[in-house]
Amino acid sequence: MSYSAVELIIKKREHQELTTAEIDWLVANYTSGSVADEQMSAMTMAILLNGMNRREIKDLTLAMIASGERLDFSKLSWPTADKHSTGGVGDKITLPLAPLVASYGVAVPQLSGRGLGHTGGTLDKLESIAGWRAALSNQEMFDQLQKHGAVICAAGSGLAPADRKLYSLRDVTGTVEAIPLIASSIMSKKIAEGTAALVLDVKVGSGAFMKTLDRARELAQTLVQLGNDAGVKTSALLTNMETPLGKKIGNALEVEESIEVLQGGGPQDVIDITVELAREMLLLAGKAVDDPRENLNNGKAMDVFTSMIHAQGGDLSKPLPTAKFQHAIVATETGYLEKLDALSVGISSWRLGAGRERKEDPVSFGAGIVLAAQQGDQVTKGQVLMTLHSDSEQKFERAIQALDGAWSIGSNPVAAKQIILEKVS
Amino acid sequence: MSYSAVELIIKKREHQELTTAEIDWLVANYTSGSVADEQMSAMTMAILLNGMNRREIKDLTLAMIASGERLDFSKLSWPTADKHSTGGVGDKITLPLAPLVASYGVAVPQLSGRGLGHTGGTLDKLESIAGWRAALSNQEMFDQLQKHGAVICAAGSGLAPADRKLYSLRDVTGTVEAIPLIASSIMSKKIAEGTAALVLDVKVGSGAFMKTLDRARELAQTLVQLGNDAGVKTSALLTNMETPLGKKIGNALEVEESIEVLQGGGPQDVIDITVELAREMLLLAGKAVDDPRENLNNGKAMDVFTSMIHAQGGDLSKPLPTAKFQHAIVATETGYLEKLDALSVGISSWRLGAGRERKEDPVSFGAGIVLAAQQGDQVTKGQVLMTLHSDSEQKFERAIQALDGAWSIGSNPVAAKQIILEKVS
Repeated sequence: MSYSAVELIIKKREHQELTTAEIDWLVANYTSGSVADEQMSAMTMAILLNGMNRREIKDLTLAMIASGERLDFSKLSWPTADKHSTGGVGDKITLPLAPLVASYGVAVPQLSGRGLGHTGGTLDKLESIAGWRAALSNQEMFDQLQKHGAVICAAGSGLAPADRKLYSLRDVTGTVEAIPLIASSIMSKKIAEGTAALVLDVKVGSGAFMKTLDRARELAQTLVQLGNDAGVKTSALLTNMETPLGKKIGNALEVEESIEVLQGGGPQDVIDITVELAREMLLLAGKAVDDPRENLNNGKAMDVFTSMIHAQGGDLSKPLPTAKFQHAIVATETGYLEKLDALSVGISSWRLGAGRERKEDPVSFGAGIVLAAQQGDQVTKGQVLMTLHSDSEQKFERAIQALDGAWSIGSNPVAAKQIILEKVS
Repeated sequence: MSYSAVELIIKKREHQELTTAEIDWLVANYTSGSVADEQMSAMTMAILLNGMNRREIKDLTLAMIASGERLDFSKLSWPTADKHSTGGVGDKITLPLAPLVASYGVAVPQLSGRGLGHTGGTLDKLESIAGWRAALSNQEMFDQLQKHGAVICAAGSGLAPADRKLYSLRDVTGTVEAIPLIASSIMSKKIAEGTAALVLDVKVGSGAFMKTLDRARELAQTLVQLGNDAGVKTSALLTNMETPLGKKIGNALEVEESIEVLQGGGPQDVIDITVELAREMLLLAGKAVDDPRENLNNGKAMDVFTSMIHAQGGDLSKPLPTAKFQHAIVATETGYLEKLDALSVGISSWRLGAGRERKEDPVSFGAGIVLAAQQGDQVTKGQVLMTLHSDSEQKFERAIQALDGAWSIGSNPVAAKQIILEKVS
């Protein structure tokens, strides 16, 4: 069956439902290039403004999966579970989480990406470890999973190529923030990846994609429905991203903090999210564990992390890269840190060199921000609030500008921040 | 001032107003190519779905005018007035109208286009006259206007190039039907053309862009406001396009019928619209005439037509091209022709070769349809209803298909069709 791209655009523009065959045709022909970028961008704007129903989103996801290969982990001797985060500032949770879950007998096949904009990429973080390599063949991935139970590697270009192409287009055409498009983009990759269970960490707040609880809940429900419709046991946690996660933001800095957590230390918010996500993944994979905190404290998760990193060539005995220059931001009064805005801290860290502006830019491994105080902490006038790290002194000015109005100190105690806001299953 | 295309798209997507400076930047950078097609198509879809206010439409129109040259007829010794039709089936009105208005002392600078789709192009029609050439330099146009008072020629590529580029894009991205975009497209060319007065013929019905009176009225009001805001005396007539205009549809066929009207004959509907539009143009140009029908009947308009055609190399002594093959459609019963659908007749004529599918296709001058009866006429079983003309016998099958259900004969008399529906000024 053949369709006209213009007629399909007009259908969606006029609030009509696209059929399964129409969506299949559109995605296949966009992938092959017979539907042009300018046609697809008009379509994505129409989808953003007029929406898609549950069936259309499911069909879009399935069509994107069908545009590429599917992995199959059914021959592993482990059950599988994966996690996906919608991205936040200081979100290094994958690093302690994958080995923690593996330490309880559930394999975690984490196909990750690089960062663009103010939220970092998992691969960029791990590449700060000397010798570590992100690219694995499907066979290497399978072998590593079978042996160590955890792998964090680059998603190959064979998975959902339609999504790859569409994502670049949405990025330059103001059509990123459409729930049907976000949902099908995330889920096409995760379903094609072949995990049996999936827990979504949907971030809410200034540093996240979804600024309000309502929008985050809508996205989470869409994702959970999509996953379960496709036979993947899926649930979601809505978590707080008004303020950065943990105390270290950057590439090597986040690896450092992840290792602290794997060694039984680290900031409470990072521990809490890691443990809650692990609990949920283990539950969906049929291996419920009362308190996954245990294997953080007894070193078992750290052992898996070490093996996983070594298996990909990483050498943890070498020191992590550090930045050449530091600049301290100091508290202007005594009181409680009542606000510390995630987005501003993310942009500041990005401007310090931790992130990239264009896809082809390198990241600076040592760059980033170390917080001396988190939201709610008591601070004293003159104490260091945070330290900015960069390889270039010129970068401090704009990084400091990004922090203008990003934090405030009040005289009254602030309620402890709630990390886990809701669960959707 | 520099902007980000993505930020402007997001503004419009979020129902915000674009500033004058933002619209200027967008149009200038789209014309130069720094704003990409896929960005502009997302923007046009956002405009189509979220609209633009009167100021934004005015700014868009002015920015498109500023993308190219402006003509100036203020040194002519004649006042000027022009007409623009939104396009319909059998709409040859420009051909008798321009010489008729000129015959009363008001110059008509008609910059026209070629046809694409089921509505014909004025230049295609005139090119069926042996030797006639559409391309004139600005100086030739000015000289001919000064001498004969009327010119119908090709709009040079210097007028509103932004509109030209945007129009091609809208055509392939399902964003043609947006009133802000239609209005700015029409008015940027007409204002840049330099006419002092303008009458718009906004067609309503199946064969027109605007299918309903409400949409047509909205477009007409927008156009009239835009023209008057820009200092061009502008009014509009809403006219019936449920059924074809006149009895001849095609290129040479419409020239033939135009000459009938210029010689005091022709179908009543064509005469009525021509006379009403002439009355309105003459009024706006300050040369009100009670009954412009006079110069159709006394041959004065025909004299101007002859001079105008000769000035552009046209030889009216040579016979007009005719098609090689004819096929008659016959009445299946006796009664009144209660319906004869404009769009179907337009598509049928187009399939016979009168129109083009792609911009680069030639048209067949002789192809088209001659109606033996118009809507409301009494017909007898077995009589010819219409004759299809084509240079290729293979074309009849699909042309006949297009007429399936396009006409019906009833036993009760049908109210005479109303040609002029409303005036907007």
